[in-house]
Amino acid sequence: MSRRIEPYNHQEKPILVVISGPSGVGKDMAIARLKEMGYPFHFVVTATTRPQRPTEINGVDYIFVSTGEFAEMIEQGELLEYAVVYGDYKGIPKAQVRQALTSGKDVIMRIDVQGAATIRRLVPEAVLIYISAESEEALVNRLRQRKTEPEDQLKMRIATARQELKRLDLFDYVVINADDKLDETCHKIAAIITAEKCRVEQREINL
Amino acid sequence: MSRRIEPYNHQEKPILVVISGPSGVGKDMAIARLKEMGYPFHFVVTATTRPQRPTEINGVDYIFVSTGEFAEMIEQGELLEYAVVYGDYKGIPKAQVRQALTSGKDVIMRIDVQGAATIRRLVPEAVLIYISAESEEALVNRLRQRKTEPEDQLKMRIATARQELKRLDLFDYVVINADDKLDETCHKIAAIITAEKCRVEQREINL
Repeated sequence: MSRRIEPYNHQEKPILVVISGPSGVGKDMAIARLKEMGYPFHFVVTATTRPQRPTEINGVDYIFVSTGEFAEMIEQGELLEYAVVYGDYKGIPKAQVRQALTSGKDVIMRIDVQGAATIRRLVPEAVLIYISAESEEALVNRLRQRKTEPEDQLKMRIATARQELKRLDLFDYVVINADDKLDETCHKIAAIITAEKCRVEQREINL
Repeated sequence: MSRRIEPYNHQEKPILVVISGPSGVGKDMAIARLKEMGYPFHFVVTATTRPQRPTEINGVDYIFVSTGEFAEMIEQGELLEYAVVYGDYKGIPKAQVRQALTSGKDVIMRIDVQGAATIRRLVPEAVLIYISAESEEALVNRLRQRKTEPEDQLKMRIATARQELKRLDLFDYVVINADDKLDETCHKIAAIITAEKCRVEQREINL
């Protein structure tokens, strides 16, 4: 599963990074900012059955599919992982990840905590990062400001966030995404990836 | 030895970083550059019996002591670790490290591979970074350019570097310090420290 690094003439292996955390914490914003910063990652585009938001672009932010199309992807074994998240299906297209890794690119995927647990089991060599708000109040405020969910769904999301915190031991790293500190958050994510690529024991990923 | 991080209101613990690697690889230059970059670390000043080089400042680059003074430090248990390196004694003053950690500062120490092995045993929570040249030829060239050692000592240093590479499994990270890439090396060391401070399992150091 792992190999010794050769300090002379060594070749770095691409790594698989999972960005997770509660709804509203800023995972999408962090990934968008990392893209802007020009890191040469492959950002996995998740397939989802949830309705497209006005600001979102199909094929860039998500691959928006119907429930029937999603069922077909499950049937064909095309998804590395999938789950029902707040009534909508979300899944990671396996071929996309495999192609990126084969081409030598690091892969970043955004995934909920339930999905992160699945990835930990399927791909133990993945690097799992949990993005947290600085406090529960801050998380609640951000969810209210987003105004994309009705109040009862919002309560569900807060209850879920509380439960998910108990799964923190699944993760390798936790990064606090404080209000107005998105650049610091992205700097920390980038540092984690740089550090992981310097590890003596490198992770060999087999999907 | 380790504790769970609390994402809300958590306090980061200071970490202990060991920078090691072969003679001539650029450990001193990397540490000097990190200092210039203004990272708020405590850089441990090693005590040594080796002669002061013209460019070195006593108390800043090393604490230069006589063999008698060094023997007294050993006697009094004042050294965390010490060793004979190419005929000269080098040691880490324990009080200096303890004071820095107590004040909440991260500590960086420069140490030879033999000493790094001792630190790994005494302080398993330390983060060990091995600095490597990009090739043996590059290392030999740098040692020759430095012109601080006679040819037979140079041969000894190269033989030692070869042996030390076999101890790479002692270390957590390896950073290649290629010619003219000192800033990249320092960026990687800083990234490793940033990442380690985000680890879910934080390291509690007891000296």
